[in-house]
Amino acid sequence: MVLRNKNIAKLQAGYLFPEINRRKNKLLEENPDAKIISLGIGNTTKPLTPYITKALKEAAESLGTAEGYSGYGDEQGMTALREKIAEQLYKGLVDANEVFVSDGGKCDCGRLQLMFGSKVTIAVQDPAYPVYVDGSVIIGVTGDYNESIKRFDNIVYMKCTAENNFFPDIKSLERTDLIYFCSPNNPTGVVATRDQLKELVDFAKANKSIIIFDAAYSEFISDPNLPRSIFEIEGVREVALEVSSFSKSIGFTGVRLGWTVVPKELRFDNGEQVINDWNRITCTVFNGASNIVQKGCLAVLDKEGLKEMQETVDFYMENARLIKKGLDEMGVKSYWTGNSPYIWAYFPGEKSWDVFSRLLNEAHVVVTPGSGFGSAGEEYVRFSAFGHRNLIIEAVERLKEKLK
Amino acid sequence: MVLRNKNIAKLQAGYLFPEINRRKNKLLEENPDAKIISLGIGNTTKPLTPYITKALKEAAESLGTAEGYSGYGDEQGMTALREKIAEQLYKGLVDANEVFVSDGGKCDCGRLQLMFGSKVTIAVQDPAYPVYVDGSVIIGVTGDYNESIKRFDNIVYMKCTAENNFFPDIKSLERTDLIYFCSPNNPTGVVATRDQLKELVDFAKANKSIIIFDAAYSEFISDPNLPRSIFEIEGVREVALEVSSFSKSIGFTGVRLGWTVVPKELRFDNGEQVINDWNRITCTVFNGASNIVQKGCLAVLDKEGLKEMQETVDFYMENARLIKKGLDEMGVKSYWTGNSPYIWAYFPGEKSWDVFSRLLNEAHVVVTPGSGFGSAGEEYVRFSAFGHRNLIIEAVERLKEKLK
Repeated sequence: MVLRNKNIAKLQAGYLFPEINRRKNKLLEENPDAKIISLGIGNTTKPLTPYITKALKEAAESLGTAEGYSGYGDEQGMTALREKIAEQLYKGLVDANEVFVSDGGKCDCGRLQLMFGSKVTIAVQDPAYPVYVDGSVIIGVTGDYNESIKRFDNIVYMKCTAENNFFPDIKSLERTDLIYFCSPNNPTGVVATRDQLKELVDFAKANKSIIIFDAAYSEFISDPNLPRSIFEIEGVREVALEVSSFSKSIGFTGVRLGWTVVPKELRFDNGEQVINDWNRITCTVFNGASNIVQKGCLAVLDKEGLKEMQETVDFYMENARLIKKGLDEMGVKSYWTGNSPYIWAYFPGEKSWDVFSRLLNEAHVVVTPGSGFGSAGEEYVRFSAFGHRNLIIEAVERLKEKLK
Repeated sequence: MVLRNKNIAKLQAGYLFPEINRRKNKLLEENPDAKIISLGIGNTTKPLTPYITKALKEAAESLGTAEGYSGYGDEQGMTALREKIAEQLYKGLVDANEVFVSDGGKCDCGRLQLMFGSKVTIAVQDPAYPVYVDGSVIIGVTGDYNESIKRFDNIVYMKCTAENNFFPDIKSLERTDLIYFCSPNNPTGVVATRDQLKELVDFAKANKSIIIFDAAYSEFISDPNLPRSIFEIEGVREVALEVSSFSKSIGFTGVRLGWTVVPKELRFDNGEQVINDWNRITCTVFNGASNIVQKGCLAVLDKEGLKEMQETVDFYMENARLIKKGLDEMGVKSYWTGNSPYIWAYFPGEKSWDVFSRLLNEAHVVVTPGSGFGSAGEEYVRFSAFGHRNLIIEAVERLKEKLK
């Protein structure tokens, strides 16, 4: 008979977000009239903006014409889009053929893990977006789940809590092959400064490690002193690759488009270029992002598209301000940098799944329990600013009323 | 330093199709005026049909409205689409929640390999679509490439040549955990009969193996006696899963949509259901197919959409008839079942890359060398029927003239 893959058996419970849905649906079964408001999963709600919508529509329409039809494209993405991402979003810091267009950052993380294989050692921020750990477990990088400490063996967890201003203590950090690092961070919302990233890059360089930098929320950074990409840091090209996404900044969570940048200088121990293996993975187990979506993204990087992207970001940031204000008024200690769509709220002495249940059952508001992102997320919950304005306002009011 | 993943180092040369492109581009550099016609990669050329185009266009447009916008959907696909695939394409032989919608069959193969992990043994048809072998090499299932026999160690190759009517000799087949099987076959175009698939299913059942059945070309089967899905075979639900795609049948090679069906009865040795692990993989390293594309596919499965799909299939099948007729007139021995878009041509005593080069250099016609699909494909090349009608006619005429 066929043995079950032992690595998958190591995974604990379900993936975080389906588990939240399960609990939400349970409440709805017991209380069918409950009007649940979700500030949980970072799911966009604002309709696509006009210029971008028009481009998607025209891309679909053109596939019905002899001139506009296209079949398989390059697995790495349309040349024009790779060029425009390099120019508009990286201001020439990276080359167009270092940009690999994909169907999203989560999917690229999975393929990166496939590329690096099971023999690498890894470090992750704790708390962190689940795919870094879960994907690493599946590929076989980790040991078993250690129930007593609620962590997997063979992962270096970089604790990021209020005590260290949510940036790991690099000086005491153990060397690993790969370092997953997300800024603006999901879930804490904290953005690493230029100096902090320089320290991380120098550490990676000294240890010959590779940083997998997740910049999915970079467009939410408004402070011009904060780096939007790790490629803004000196000396980075030998030690980092970057994953990014249009999911949140233009509402493409369901439309699907992301990209990964792998610099040519990034090499394995034997001198071979990482970009060649990434290209091989991309060509072997991926077939390119949808041509409709890629054409839509060309428009995003036009002047009008970039303006609309800023409007979308501004809309969610106003939501974030309202949530932060509400939490302040309730006297709930919370962290928000003004440069990310997540607010990280602290409930000392309380289990984060208990906070989740309390907010769900008493106020019918869904948040994300911090421990779902790692054990250092215990006592925290994440509020997501992705939502309709009226529902954000209502959720804040309900919370104020029920939790006072 | 970070060691390169040894499994990726095992892969030979480039992926087949980029290698063909490289050789094509080399000819163009030396001979810029050459008007190359590609009957190589199975890339669709016919514009999308009106009803399907309209649905895609409207799906894109509706994302710009408050009512029509949607963010993250279920990773497994829209419920309505899963239901419609189960009803329309499987006539209820499978259940809607056994259908997992994806961005394509190749991508699903990669994720299936990730799910089964590195400890399984596998059998593949020889010749076969490259991802079965290449993806297995990457995940670590195979040994090294054995240059002398041009095969990887630790793979059971099921030779499919004219001698066995392109169906493996099941009676002498060694037991493996997984059996990759593609019908209509890519590259040979041969369709397994109901009796043959029954023999394969019985073999898998007796050996407690799992069949990964690739039905990407099922819509090209016109003979009502030939099975379009392995789920038409009695007793199959405990031993097989099926990967399929809209790429070829409606021209979605660039638009991207496929699906995988995992029956609830399919279990690992410990009794756990394969579908649960597949769901976990889908939720962890995938984020759903594009919502625009999924909505377009809902229309494909309407009466008008199905009619248009048949028109698209008929168009390419007429191309196939023209190629087959041309090869017959040239006296080239070739195999074509009338139920697939590929014609498998036999050039005894000649290396298939040499045939490739001869056709490219003398007639400026690109085909796919059979050895690119496995060593049993040596002396064969694949002609693809995906192309513009006028170019198919011209290619056939050039071949007749130059190769007589």
